[in-house]
Amino acid sequence: MEREISIREDETLDTLLGERVKVIQKKKGYRFSLDPLLLAGFVSVGSEETVIDIGTGSGVIPLLLAAGSRGKSITGVEFQEELAEMAGRSVEYGGCAERISILHCDLSDLPGRFAPEAFDLVISNPPYRKLGSGRINPDEQKAVARHELAMTLEELVKVSRYLVRPKGRVACIYPVTRLIDLLACLRNYRLEPKQMRLVHPKQGEEANLVLVESRSEGGSELRIHPPLYVYTGEGEYTEEIQRLFIEGYLRDL
Amino acid sequence: MEREISIREDETLDTLLGERVKVIQKKKGYRFSLDPLLLAGFVSVGSEETVIDIGTGSGVIPLLLAAGSRGKSITGVEFQEELAEMAGRSVEYGGCAERISILHCDLSDLPGRFAPEAFDLVISNPPYRKLGSGRINPDEQKAVARHELAMTLEELVKVSRYLVRPKGRVACIYPVTRLIDLLACLRNYRLEPKQMRLVHPKQGEEANLVLVESRSEGGSELRIHPPLYVYTGEGEYTEEIQRLFIEGYLRDL
Repeated sequence: MEREISIREDETLDTLLGERVKVIQKKKGYRFSLDPLLLAGFVSVGSEETVIDIGTGSGVIPLLLAAGSRGKSITGVEFQEELAEMAGRSVEYGGCAERISILHCDLSDLPGRFAPEAFDLVISNPPYRKLGSGRINPDEQKAVARHELAMTLEELVKVSRYLVRPKGRVACIYPVTRLIDLLACLRNYRLEPKQMRLVHPKQGEEANLVLVESRSEGGSELRIHPPLYVYTGEGEYTEEIQRLFIEGYLRDL
Repeated sequence: MEREISIREDETLDTLLGERVKVIQKKKGYRFSLDPLLLAGFVSVGSEETVIDIGTGSGVIPLLLAAGSRGKSITGVEFQEELAEMAGRSVEYGGCAERISILHCDLSDLPGRFAPEAFDLVISNPPYRKLGSGRINPDEQKAVARHELAMTLEELVKVSRYLVRPKGRVACIYPVTRLIDLLACLRNYRLEPKQMRLVHPKQGEEANLVLVESRSEGGSELRIHPPLYVYTGEGEYTEEIQRLFIEGYLRDL
């Protein structure tokens, strides 16, 4: 049943998991990459859990989780008003408003909005280029999504620490080049990294991204899963990546 | 030309790299595993560099490096007298005494023996079970090699920091379960992890070991190489591991 949600002239409606997930995006401006799909596929989410996705962008992670009946209540927080508005429309369009809330606010507002330890799982696909590295994108939406304009790594980890319940999890995707910064910061905030997976563009190539799941107050025992390859030698998506698009997740609680 | 070095009744003479490396070991007691071979294969060593191997055991890492003309002067330090004596005989037996020195002393003695920043490269295949975890091996040689009896991780990193020159490297192999401890400790001592490689027993299995190379005062940019698999699906050593035994190293400066 089509709902009365308008898609504007400068927007597209992109589909994932067959037709189960539909995401409204600007034709130009920030558009989601493979990263949130990898993260949604990596993280384990129980059907009764409360989840918050910090910097949800177009809302693709909450939409993917809801489509897989993963998470009872999912909050997507977005700092950019225009993106938050589009994400909200995608949620309405998909009929997920009972399960997903989209919230437009700043990172610094989150402690005022939520009680401490309110979530079982905090997810984030954060902007990850250090300020001062690389050219700032003249398109402001892209710039905020890619650079640490709206939040630094430490601000993000600190607020994740505030939001997650004891023994709850914090999951993110991050570039390998900055992995040590990430791991050090997580440990400083007593979010012990417990599960890790490296993402390599192809077999035989260096890893460029890392998926990390930490546990609040967890013991110091790390597991590293088999690597994830994005492309085959012929430049096609690997079977595992194709399953991400089709089934939406790799493993679950 | 056979040299006049005696091999005792309770010892074996084990060969690597064809016949180029011969290592004297006890039939019973501590015997080297694949770990030092993986580490010797991973680390880059220039032909003019000064190298120290902390906890050299049977001296297998210095012997492998010397056989590949890697390192101008290599010091192997061993805390257990009996192992140090055997390593010294292996060096004599192999005619490597000009290039390799074996030193029997405690970790805490090293700052008294060497000037600060005396080495281009510090290597270690350290004992890595935390005290209090697992049964202590009744065979004392094995126990010291496997548990943190002779040195804790922090003691090792601290002395490595003392021994390495500015911009020099510190390399080790460590269990994945304790990777966060290792990385945090290295960074605390300003030995920034720069290169990492995961070792998986087989494709599709979790990593159990990690190879890490840090740079003294290095910038915070990490590279993670393609994974290393030890066994094929049929339980044979992979081609890459076979090359380690035959050629002794994977890459070099």
